Amino acid sequence: MTLIIRNCRPLGLAPTDILIEDGRITAMGAGLTAPGATVEDADGRIAIPGLVDAHTHVDKSLLGWPWYVNEVGPRLIDKITNERAVKKAYGLDPYTQSMRQVLQSMAFGTTLIRSHVDVDTEQGLAAVEGVMRTREELAGEVEIQIVAFPQSGQMTRAGTDRLLDQALAMGADLIGGIDPCAMERDPKGHLDTVFGLAEKHGKRIDIHLHEPGEMGAFSMEMIFERIRALGMQGKVAVSHAFCLGFADFERTQGLIDTCAELDVPILTTAPASRDVPLVRRLIPAGVRMGAGNDGFRDTWGPYGDGDMLERCMFLGMRNNLRRDDELALALQICTTGGAGAIDVAGHALEVGGRGDLVLLEGETLAEAIVTRAPRKLVVAGGRVTARDGATLRVIP
Amino acid sequence: MTLIIRNCRPLGLAPTDILIEDGRITAMGAGLTAPGATVEDADGRIAIPGLVDAHTHVDKSLLGWPWYVNEVGPRLIDKITNERAVKKAYGLDPYTQSMRQVLQSMAFGTTLIRSHVDVDTEQGLAAVEGVMRTREELAGEVEIQIVAFPQSGQMTRAGTDRLLDQALAMGADLIGGIDPCAMERDPKGHLDTVFGLAEKHGKRIDIHLHEPGEMGAFSMEMIFERIRALGMQGKVAVSHAFCLGFADFERTQGLIDTCAELDVPILTTAPASRDVPLVRRLIPAGVRMGAGNDGFRDTWGPYGDGDMLERCMFLGMRNNLRRDDELALALQICTTGGAGAIDVAGHALEVGGRGDLVLLEGETLAEAIVTRAPRKLVVAGGRVTARDGATLRVIP
Repeated sequence: MTLIIRNCRPLGLAPTDILIEDGRITAMGAGLTAPGATVEDADGRIAIPGLVDAHTHVDKSLLGWPWYVNEVGPRLIDKITNERAVKKAYGLDPYTQSMRQVLQSMAFGTTLIRSHVDVDTEQGLAAVEGVMRTREELAGEVEIQIVAFPQSGQMTRAGTDRLLDQALAMGADLIGGIDPCAMERDPKGHLDTVFGLAEKHGKRIDIHLHEPGEMGAFSMEMIFERIRALGMQGKVAVSHAFCLGFADFERTQGLIDTCAELDVPILTTAPASRDVPLVRRLIPAGVRMGAGNDGFRDTWGPYGDGDMLERCMFLGMRNNLRRDDELALALQICTTGGAGAIDVAGHALEVGGRGDLVLLEGETLAEAIVTRAPRKLVVAGGRVTARDGATLRVIP
Repeated sequence: MTLIIRNCRPLGLAPTDILIEDGRITAMGAGLTAPGATVEDADGRIAIPGLVDAHTHVDKSLLGWPWYVNEVGPRLIDKITNERAVKKAYGLDPYTQSMRQVLQSMAFGTTLIRSHVDVDTEQGLAAVEGVMRTREELAGEVEIQIVAFPQSGQMTRAGTDRLLDQALAMGADLIGGIDPCAMERDPKGHLDTVFGLAEKHGKRIDIHLHEPGEMGAFSMEMIFERIRALGMQGKVAVSHAFCLGFADFERTQGLIDTCAELDVPILTTAPASRDVPLVRRLIPAGVRMGAGNDGFRDTWGPYGDGDMLERCMFLGMRNNLRRDDELALALQICTTGGAGAIDVAGHALEVGGRGDLVLLEGETLAEAIVTRAPRKLVVAGGRVTARDGATLRVIP
């Protein structure tokens, strides 16, 4: 399939055409033609690479259901326990829910997703199976990485490790982990299991680390030790990593520098109410950084709608990015940088780059991020997947 | 003028009609009628009191201008100096800009605004005059409180105190102040001037306090001392008050308790990147609390569009409010509570209350806040001022 995007402004710069053939950008320049090409007129709009949701949970959303009245308690464990109960009470179908979330995200311009997917002893592998079905059905229109994620705990719920093992054998791309101290109460046990499964299946790791301050720093060190010992540099990402944002500058700088040294990507959702890894510290230190929407419209909280351009704004607000060049950096983290952080190369508007792009309204990138008009066009792998803010598919 | 809102759900509760006569709610109940009444069918939508923007700057917005490419330096003084230069270069008209901002805010459902308005030795009283003209022109449709605000410094720019004096004589409602230490470099000098002008004109005070940690705490104490000495309990508000959110729990609790004791309202914009006064601490302590959009789409930063329902979401996110009842509290701060915090009583959907209301889409308050559909109807003083997200006036 051959597609020409006529008269777009890549990243808000000078107008050009973009030729996409067989899923890759093969030329950029004025007045491009190609035999049999479909031509889409961008009419001078900004083009950006497909948005990258580097940390989400596509199996959790309650999209399509009546508003969920949240009366959940304040602790992490309250939210986890409540979620399992609601899933059961609603008879939530992971395939349907993930289709809803992914299609909505695609309509906002997301073309690449890393989703943690719950694996636990109550629902077993049902969520992984459901999301795998969504991934297969949408292949060629969106790329989904699946992290087998022990949301309910692995050390604390016997049998979870065998399910994680099966999930990886079945086709999950990565193994997840969760707060080795605060949640698992056995950092050595948990991390050895997670790293062991990664080694066995030759897969990468992405660990949820909400632990604050020194506790999180300790868990981070335990992760570093295993990366060194197993030679897994570049293969282990940490999500949230609130501990990289706590007040002790020297301590956090040491952790950040080690993330750079061991090539540990940090994936953030830039929450307003927590310490966060800061863009201004991690990027100059050479840490790969991605951003994600986390779950949204689920039993955890009401906020968000899947729009990674809104997350880009939140990332900007949380990091006090006000200048246009700073917002461009935030968007880089939500596109090319985020793709790199989840190990997808060449996700950029350049010859040889992936044929994913989104047309935005606005004079500049900053205006496009702040105003967030419906996306005129979304292209993934050289194929149009959404127009005027709506998916081309029927939402189940 | 007599208006009946038929079949609305006040704060998302049971459906009812609301009768507004001569600017006040005079009855609530099913099947209301009144001679000569205009009837608006709410069709079961949620009704809330008019939104209250308790801290903004209506003279600063660049609405109506091409996108402002922000290349401003990182310090507060960079932003202040840059803003004066841009105002001059653009020939910005405070009347036009304030009309644009206020009409846009009204379309989102704001019916009550406290605006700080710059008074400085370069533009003199032009901004106060411009905003006073807007206030007069929109009288009966929106209520605007004007704070004469020494944005560029009062101690540090000779002659500013005389201009502030004139602004108060001319009709500004309150006297403002700004960071007595960090900006003015003379906390005693600045606060004595501000309190002196307030005493002279019998007006209230609203001080910008961005100072963090112990510096802000010290300035806060200087403010407390003057409130006690002058018997100005209930007459002095503090905006931002980042120092109430710093990490020293005992210290901040002492300040918060004194705010309650001396009835010092706290007005927050809930920024994601700063310490903030927390809802969960201030409200239980009995501190009056309001929220505001601050300036938006100006030389300070790109974010925001004047929608106080979005600010309500930001307030929720910054305070980690996830439950429906918590979001209802956030909305209370953006409506009835915020009105109380800027000394406007009776801003509530109850008999005798002000005839201001907004119709929202959603099953529950939380859904309305999170989804933020265009406002079906905005009523101020019993008069329809906006429909379907658009003002009924021509925007200049």
